[in-house]
Amino acid sequence: MSAPLSPDQLEAALRAIGAERYHNLHPFHRALHDGHLTKAQVQAWALNRYYYQARIPAKDATLLARLPTAELRREWRRRIEDHDGTEPGTGGIARWLHLTDGLGLDRGYVESLEGLLPGTRFAVDAYVHFVGERTITEAIASSLTELFSPQIISERVSGMLRNYDFITEETLAYFTPRLTQAPRDSDFALNWVREHARTTEEQTAVLNALKFKCGVLWSMLDALDYAYVAPGHIPPGAFRPVS
Amino acid sequence: MSAPLSPDQLEAALRAIGAERYHNLHPFHRALHDGHLTKAQVQAWALNRYYYQARIPAKDATLLARLPTAELRREWRRRIEDHDGTEPGTGGIARWLHLTDGLGLDRGYVESLEGLLPGTRFAVDAYVHFVGERTITEAIASSLTELFSPQIISERVSGMLRNYDFITEETLAYFTPRLTQAPRDSDFALNWVREHARTTEEQTAVLNALKFKCGVLWSMLDALDYAYVAPGHIPPGAFRPVS
Repeated sequence: MSAPLSPDQLEAALRAIGAERYHNLHPFHRALHDGHLTKAQVQAWALNRYYYQARIPAKDATLLARLPTAELRREWRRRIEDHDGTEPGTGGIARWLHLTDGLGLDRGYVESLEGLLPGTRFAVDAYVHFVGERTITEAIASSLTELFSPQIISERVSGMLRNYDFITEETLAYFTPRLTQAPRDSDFALNWVREHARTTEEQTAVLNALKFKCGVLWSMLDALDYAYVAPGHIPPGAFRPVS
Repeated sequence: MSAPLSPDQLEAALRAIGAERYHNLHPFHRALHDGHLTKAQVQAWALNRYYYQARIPAKDATLLARLPTAELRREWRRRIEDHDGTEPGTGGIARWLHLTDGLGLDRGYVESLEGLLPGTRFAVDAYVHFVGERTITEAIASSLTELFSPQIISERVSGMLRNYDFITEETLAYFTPRLTQAPRDSDFALNWVREHARTTEEQTAVLNALKFKCGVLWSMLDALDYAYVAPGHIPPGAFRPVS
């Protein structure tokens, strides 16, 4: 067992995981923002990613239920407000539905989850279960992919606006608030992890938690790339674009 | 809401799901038994499938803990004995490790799960969670893919023996007992479902449980095909064959 890392060393190790495993490196992400996808493929991405957005409040509520102090719960509750909004039509999930609307997908079909890839469902559900089953510090560490999200969001928004005539700034409205919410959230989570993961065992656990979460996001793109990008292997029952 | 199905109609509807969604129809399965895979690709299959084998007793114990009578628990306990054996070196998991040994994989590496595809882990864990969260009848129904397994096993064994010089009858010893265990288990599960899923709602739930389980097995092959068959997109951290 080696000596524990300093907080700065731990942060550097976390950032190194992102540099190797964050899904901005995935071929599907590159194809998405480089304009190499068809509208049907972008629809499949938005439809599947909807399930991630829709389950984030369940993930955060699962952790919220386990947090010991009102201060911590207030911090974490804000994430649920960001996604569920303060009144009908507000919040991240509603903004994501603007995107699927703008791509011409039927909202009832999107919300029914009927056309979801099994791989999407299993990856997202794994994330919800993870925050219920692991230590609170591991659960918080699994949110640290938000350290890397401002970069992917800016790549995605500028690339998609430039490359697809069916994408407008209005349909991408989901992402604008995330550029300020994600750094605020990841600052809190990073400080928590720096302070609470002190032993080598705890530090290994938080590094593995971030690897786990990178695997969630990565495998969602695996499933999309496998199903919808050539040669195309859409599993039985999943969304089939209208050709 | 339509009228409930008769038990025979329900069984026919379950078998129709298998005919459309069971993983014997997946391109990776066909490539595996037709001899189109390299040894490295067969290694990747065996390594990932090991996690499924290794978690089956956890799946069955999760359900066992919820069963109300000693009679039911004795029936279900037999499945755990089949996989875990009665002494060291016996049972389905030990036989699976003969296969990974025979393929030249390091046993410690296989058991460490380090090289597992995230998609494999999420699919298998989804199955374990399913049997803990759904009704007992849905949990039992999710085992009904065993109705279709004798066919896939015979295709797999004969195809692999014929097409790969690195495969022997001894390395495939896992499958022989399954040819008698699976029908015995699926007979019980099918009779249970025929008897207990009487309302339309219950019948829809068991049909969806079997679709879910087909999705588990299918998406495990999706992940393998995407990662290891051309063009090959092995995610960061997963098993990389020695070339």
